[in-house]
Amino acid sequence: MGTKVRIDPGWPRFRRRTWAPAVRKGNMVFISGTAGTDEEGNLVGPGDVVAQTAQIYKKIGQLLAAAGATWDDVVWTTDYLVIDGDYQKTMDNYKRTADIRRQYFGTNFPASTAIIVEGLVSPDCLIEIEAIAVLGD
Amino acid sequence: MGTKVRIDPGWPRFRRRTWAPAVRKGNMVFISGTAGTDEEGNLVGPGDVVAQTAQIYKKIGQLLAAAGATWDDVVWTTDYLVIDGDYQKTMDNYKRTADIRRQYFGTNFPASTAIIVEGLVSPDCLIEIEAIAVLGD
Amino acid sequence: MGTKVRIDPGWPRFRRRTWAPAVRKGNMVFISGTAGTDEEGNLVGPGDVVAQTAQIYKKIGQLLAAAGATWDDVVWTTDYLVIDGDYQKTMDNYKRTADIRRQYFGTNFPASTAIIVEGLVSPDCLIEIEAIAVLGD
Repeated sequence: MGTKVRIDPGWPRFRRRTWAPAVRKGNMVFISGTAGTDEEGNLVGPGDVVAQTAQIYKKIGQLLAAAGATWDDVVWTTDYLVIDGDYQKTMDNYKRTADIRRQYFGTNFPASTAIIVEGLVSPDCLIEIEAIAVLGD
Repeated sequence: MGTKVRIDPGWPRFRRRTWAPAVRKGNMVFISGTAGTDEEGNLVGPGDVVAQTAQIYKKIGQLLAAAGATWDDVVWTTDYLVIDGDYQKTMDNYKRTADIRRQYFGTNFPASTAIIVEGLVSPDCLIEIEAIAVLGD
Repeated sequence: MGTKVRIDPGWPRFRRRTWAPAVRKGNMVFISGTAGTDEEGNLVGPGDVVAQTAQIYKKIGQLLAAAGATWDDVVWTTDYLVIDGDYQKTMDNYKRTADIRRQYFGTNFPASTAIIVEGLVSPDCLIEIEAIAVLGD
């Protein structure tokens, strides 16, 4: 199997945290709920779920690469949304993130669930995404 | 391992979505959050969490069969509930879904978590369920 | 792979439930959302997220041991929080649980996500934690 390996592209804000950005063990990669923040921890696109999602996919891509995985290896994602205005507006905006998923996955989509939660650890984020990848073919 | 395989029993509403109903890779099967809707996308049992859960288990059974898995292979489920009236009523109704779990799992239960969320992508659903299965014995 | 094995340290309250405290199949261990209750089902530390988290880690440690796993094998945790007062107070209290994670994981942290949900099955709990472990090295 190999031991558990911390996957961390050197993100400075993770040094003092009590979780890893991602870990790999054997052929599996587990990616923590990822927010649309930059390396200094500043939110990219406050109030803009599309911009935040684009930043999240960019960061998950960095984590996958650091783990030796590709987007085709991603089998599972969970999108955690928070209400932005009301339910209808939240869903309308969320639907506009579909193109980002097409850009990264092509048509080779993972299983996914999206839920609206009461809140996220990052106070101003509209979305966090977590993922699981299975390496190899 | 084999490559990632889309598991889709031909459900017409999934053709344009940016996620798969389920995927299999190697010996693992990942099932997306599944709602109690029929093939035309109509909710089975509006306002009735037991009827919706029965429909969800029927659909997850179809996904497992399409992936070559059985209920005994299911190791993990997450039930996402939305508030129906108030907390107590929601929990009382949810407890009435236990017989469906007994019907499908017998006594060979998976690990599970149930949480109440702020909302689901499907606007009128009271519950969505996701699952992971590990094939083989 | 071996068949699915129920992991249950003999917890009496689980006998009639329709899910297992944890299951192992092959080299994977799946741990259900675990609350800070004792063997009689009484909440340890009502209103105290730190005391509840300490009890949860104690119980997850029992489940890992029963599955033949160690804390180093844990690759994924999800912390489900409920609002305690307001968002800021909830987060301030939650940050005080970091020492418990250091105590159990050292610096070998898993991938993790923490979200605030609308409610948990256990009515008075402030937190539930679920986990996945991958055995072996």
